[in-house]
Amino acid sequence: MSIQQSPVSSAIAAPPELGALLDAVKDELELVEKFLNSNLVDDSPFIEELLGQVFKAGGKRLRPALSLLVAKATSNPRGEVNRLHIILAVLTELIHTASLVHDDVIDSASLRRGQETVNRKFSDKLAVLTGDLLFAQASVCLARLMNPPIVGIYGQVLGDLCAGEIRQMRQQFVLNIDWNTYIQKSIWKTASLFAAGTQSAPILNHCKDEVVSAMKQYGLNLGICFQIVDDLLDVTASSSQLGKPAGSDLSQGLITAPTLFVLERKDEAAARLEQLIKTRAVSSAEGIEESLEIIRANGGVESTVNLAHNYARAARETLSVIPASSYRDCLDQMVDWLLTRTN
Amino acid sequence: MSIQQSPVSSAIAAPPELGALLDAVKDELELVEKFLNSNLVDDSPFIEELLGQVFKAGGKRLRPALSLLVAKATSNPRGEVNRLHIILAVLTELIHTASLVHDDVIDSASLRRGQETVNRKFSDKLAVLTGDLLFAQASVCLARLMNPPIVGIYGQVLGDLCAGEIRQMRQQFVLNIDWNTYIQKSIWKTASLFAAGTQSAPILNHCKDEVVSAMKQYGLNLGICFQIVDDLLDVTASSSQLGKPAGSDLSQGLITAPTLFVLERKDEAAARLEQLIKTRAVSSAEGIEESLEIIRANGGVESTVNLAHNYARAARETLSVIPASSYRDCLDQMVDWLLTRTN
Repeated sequence: MSIQQSPVSSAIAAPPELGALLDAVKDELELVEKFLNSNLVDDSPFIEELLGQVFKAGGKRLRPALSLLVAKATSNPRGEVNRLHIILAVLTELIHTASLVHDDVIDSASLRRGQETVNRKFSDKLAVLTGDLLFAQASVCLARLMNPPIVGIYGQVLGDLCAGEIRQMRQQFVLNIDWNTYIQKSIWKTASLFAAGTQSAPILNHCKDEVVSAMKQYGLNLGICFQIVDDLLDVTASSSQLGKPAGSDLSQGLITAPTLFVLERKDEAAARLEQLIKTRAVSSAEGIEESLEIIRANGGVESTVNLAHNYARAARETLSVIPASSYRDCLDQMVDWLLTRTN
Repeated sequence: MSIQQSPVSSAIAAPPELGALLDAVKDELELVEKFLNSNLVDDSPFIEELLGQVFKAGGKRLRPALSLLVAKATSNPRGEVNRLHIILAVLTELIHTASLVHDDVIDSASLRRGQETVNRKFSDKLAVLTGDLLFAQASVCLARLMNPPIVGIYGQVLGDLCAGEIRQMRQQFVLNIDWNTYIQKSIWKTASLFAAGTQSAPILNHCKDEVVSAMKQYGLNLGICFQIVDDLLDVTASSSQLGKPAGSDLSQGLITAPTLFVLERKDEAAARLEQLIKTRAVSSAEGIEESLEIIRANGGVESTVNLAHNYARAARETLSVIPASSYRDCLDQMVDWLLTRTN
């Protein structure tokens, strides 16, 4: 298995291309893109410029795509979706982007997706406001859905995103993290928003509770899997693949799955790794290099791959509840793509 | 007329006390206070501590009080309100507070209402997240109202708040501001949120459109009046009354009503004031002192008082649409209080 190329792909013969999967919702994603750049709050050209600056950096649009694929897979046999599904997809990406813009202020990041960040190009001040503006645009979208249960779902998602970030901040260099805490944090930070999109799409289709609940579980498990792969890539990918220094989670004292697996061995390797974290040696180039070496040499990668596969399997199993279709196949292949992504 | 004591009170014999006005909604405001401190998103004690830190600083709770007074004045003759009105009041204060927390990060402020700000006590990072958390709590409240039109109103308010701040940022040291721009900015920054609370209360009471629309106009005009008085106090009050340096708007290049009135005279005083702003001399202690002197000596205060009275009158006139009651009297006296406030 080539760790550098594709960390979790060992079980898969020909990994799917994301582009091919997204083709199934190509027209809808074009509408989403246009909508993302629309100023919904006033008629100021500067606000349009700001939105343009934020969204021209691109991004995979994974969350809107998942929501749209679920919308089609739970719609009629022709996979028809309506304007509300587009708004839902936009809303989901707006919340994701708002949290990224605020993260970049918090971390003083200067590049995101190869583009200058708002804080770098303009100022921290404007970046805080830009994040708020994106949340405001999301609220306007939410209002347009006119669907109280979906308002409730997204209200909780916003809370989860903040709670997850605040907890993560407070758990830096805390060693006695357990698996529950780790998975819960992954839900708050990532899976909760995935699930909101995949759950709300069948709600808009007036699907039965059983389908809504299954699609929520699909998003939740896929989101956890996505976060685990993210945490794995931090250990296995090169800095150039990641666009940030490898090992940056651990160097900030964030204990994720690969580290947790080694720490719970309670052997010599675990003791040394614990020492490197406790003394904050992980924050230095040599310290992080040694730590990553320990993790790779002591099964941290393999165990994390297995963990990701468990959540991938759980995501896939939920799909049996919805009728067979090309869109359901895409949702199935999306799980494979997630396991093979390298950035 | 004693400018230092009560800038806009010349027309009023015995200005009402805010405490006496708030007595009419005392029980409800106690519930609001409890709710503001409740963690609605998860079970983390640290998040409760954060909310406690934010809300223990107090504040007048003017926005929730106005919303509750309108709720009572547009309810049955006994002035009964329900749980939804409490949630609406909480929601309104949460949005106000979230925007203050982000403003404090943006301005690197260390004190707010006599308490250490979140950015000062913890960090900028946590303060950005705390503002986001308060917006998230507001979204949870909004969801609980289960009322799509109110979701729409508050979505627009969030947009207005951001658009107002972003425009204000971009208009620093811009001299050719016109009255439309000034009033529009006051609506975005302040009056839009006032109006959301006073408009949504009768919506929850299932009032006729005429009443809803009148109460929206009440909040809008009162909010503009509030902002004008704020801008006036920046020129007339002492630094100790304001809890910040007097003239701080103008020293940052923000052109508000008292300055606008002098600038539009196009005489020698206007030319000198324009020069002080253009050369950014207003940012120095001597420059701001001279500027404030020019404004006070050339009718800037009196004209602004008149402008505030115009909006106060417009607010008051809307009240004829609702039946006479002690609560309507409070709403009427609230206008007087606003004109006489000194901080």
